[in-house]
Amino acid sequence: MGKTPRSFIREILRVTEDRSVISFAGGLPNPALFPVDGIKEAAIDVLTEKPAEALQYSTTEGYLPLRQWIAERYQERAGLSVPPENILITNGSQQSLDLIGKICIDKNSPVAIEKPGYLGAIQAFSLYEPQFHAVDLEPDGPDIASLEDIVRRCTPQFFYGVPNFQNPSGVTYSDEKRREVGKILSGSDTLFIEDDAYGELRFRGDDLPLVQQFLPENGVILGSFSKIIAPGMRMGWIAAPPEIYDKLITAKQASDLHSNYLSQLIIHRFLRDHDIECHLRQIRESYHMQRDCMVKAMEEFFPQEVTFTRPDGGMFLWATLPDGISPLDLFELSIQNKVAFVPGNPFYTDGGSSNSLRLNYSNADPDSIFEGIRRLGDAMKSLIG
Amino acid sequence: MGKTPRSFIREILRVTEDRSVISFAGGLPNPALFPVDGIKEAAIDVLTEKPAEALQYSTTEGYLPLRQWIAERYQERAGLSVPPENILITNGSQQSLDLIGKICIDKNSPVAIEKPGYLGAIQAFSLYEPQFHAVDLEPDGPDIASLEDIVRRCTPQFFYGVPNFQNPSGVTYSDEKRREVGKILSGSDTLFIEDDAYGELRFRGDDLPLVQQFLPENGVILGSFSKIIAPGMRMGWIAAPPEIYDKLITAKQASDLHSNYLSQLIIHRFLRDHDIECHLRQIRESYHMQRDCMVKAMEEFFPQEVTFTRPDGGMFLWATLPDGISPLDLFELSIQNKVAFVPGNPFYTDGGSSNSLRLNYSNADPDSIFEGIRRLGDAMKSLIG
Repeated sequence: MGKTPRSFIREILRVTEDRSVISFAGGLPNPALFPVDGIKEAAIDVLTEKPAEALQYSTTEGYLPLRQWIAERYQERAGLSVPPENILITNGSQQSLDLIGKICIDKNSPVAIEKPGYLGAIQAFSLYEPQFHAVDLEPDGPDIASLEDIVRRCTPQFFYGVPNFQNPSGVTYSDEKRREVGKILSGSDTLFIEDDAYGELRFRGDDLPLVQQFLPENGVILGSFSKIIAPGMRMGWIAAPPEIYDKLITAKQASDLHSNYLSQLIIHRFLRDHDIECHLRQIRESYHMQRDCMVKAMEEFFPQEVTFTRPDGGMFLWATLPDGISPLDLFELSIQNKVAFVPGNPFYTDGGSSNSLRLNYSNADPDSIFEGIRRLGDAMKSLIG
Repeated sequence: MGKTPRSFIREILRVTEDRSVISFAGGLPNPALFPVDGIKEAAIDVLTEKPAEALQYSTTEGYLPLRQWIAERYQERAGLSVPPENILITNGSQQSLDLIGKICIDKNSPVAIEKPGYLGAIQAFSLYEPQFHAVDLEPDGPDIASLEDIVRRCTPQFFYGVPNFQNPSGVTYSDEKRREVGKILSGSDTLFIEDDAYGELRFRGDDLPLVQQFLPENGVILGSFSKIIAPGMRMGWIAAPPEIYDKLITAKQASDLHSNYLSQLIIHRFLRDHDIECHLRQIRESYHMQRDCMVKAMEEFFPQEVTFTRPDGGMFLWATLPDGISPLDLFELSIQNKVAFVPGNPFYTDGGSSNSLRLNYSNADPDSIFEGIRRLGDAMKSLIG
């Protein structure tokens, strides 16, 4: 199970190594927006001022000033009180998912996940062999009746979701659905794992409350510096209530003692000494422009029968083909036209078929977006006939 | 099980936070030997020359030039052919241990480990709930008859050992025992997990062959930059035969996608541009001197009945009290005298009692070593009576 999505994605990545292919298959942030000078300054400062600390072993929990920065950010952004003592620094969200799997899942433990769901989460959890229960993702969030039924029927260990600009679909939970998820899970034995990797990347509309707001005792938030600073340093965090936190620390310590301490100090120094709002504004403006280019090209070149999401933030779009048209066939055809995407199939835990595809816009320039979507539209038209 | 050693060690670390305590309890390399200037230069070069690559997502396997450096080092050091394609970069040896546990251990899987054994390995493996089989560690390596018996009786998934300057005991396998371990495991279904974290830290005698030499098909080597460069960047590796390697990649990808890429590039740059032999010589000379101070003080201040190892490298000594004297009682007493160590108990997988203690010399200066060992000798004398 854990191996299937990997081989699938590997095959896609192999194909897209060809430089002449326009790829919407990846999930990379735009490297032109990495704050290179700020990171370099921060690295020099840290290695000048406290090298022995930065290069030595440290505590499992992570660098306290960095955890304090994260706590203050929740306060500012969402009026949410998340004490630094509840925050654990991880090697990016993928490790957060692995640690959650490690402490929550025994073989055949029930867990609930959005359908379609984030591939990295499916991979991480699969290694612990849970019983997946899929909750359909509607345009405004999870199918509430289905979630309620699953929770009542089998009390999953957790419901894992991405309320803001979901990967793969670009869907954002409405305010109402956030409250409903909170209402269903609050006081239950099911945690809500709120993966907020893209929360800072809203480029349209107003911020909505974190679901955490509505289930303070059993909400766990996952955050990441990968999309707001840079992914190469593999740096994220988990905010969890004390009894979960304690288990996470044990699992983290056994997993790798602690996260890269030099990078923790560099990131903290960068955040402390630079205007992060200004930096985030640049990312949002760029992704907004890239998203608009893609939507406009899709409106122009995709057949009428193909529908797609219009995300308010994040990095991904989700297009759905007419019934009976397989994204795998489309992939075969479009790769001949030198354009790539991820067929929807690996985002489904039941291994079922899908007629959707994921398109990434954050790592392509407007010309490539225009040309790639044109080619993809041609492939769709010849397939739909 | 996974929690016990952690709470135990935590309690010890809490006590040693008191600055007036001379602590031999940790396992820290000497921060005065961190190559700070070289790392700073390397960081500046990497962030100047290839920032977009260093800060972006990368491959699970790790930075190829770094893996090539490791492969060449095995060739130089030991005439061992380990292709870079078989090397996976991890977040330090602790993650290597976790990945080994993840792919090899199902609940109640038999695994063999030295007695006493490395605590970090016991913690990492314990989370996967194996059945531990302990192989007594004699002054020249594992009890061969016991290893043979365990392998024949229950075919453990692996035998985990630290042939060079073992943590906690300081014991090094003799050349003969290396060959015997190879002979027993070669062609069997039991892997040898050769943790060589300290292999570069030999300060007396000649290098001995890696056990890997004698079981090419089912040997796995764990290496680390923590003891030869700096632990704060959490950087190590696993070298494994192809079928194991492939499983490790799947597990690593699900665990955290890949190791910190910026740090991989920095470490490679440092290794490429600096005289690593000269740097290692400094570390070996310093640890040799620190080890000699400790041995000399122990010969002077410890009661005759207390025996101890005289390691040829690495960072640890192992002292054994007379029968009936508990290192836990000694700990209570010596902490009042402001000196700390790790009682032997958590290094035993059977939770049994121990009359030994681990002493670390790499992170203490000669005066503290002298004074600390004097105080510890006093506590021993008053306990032995």
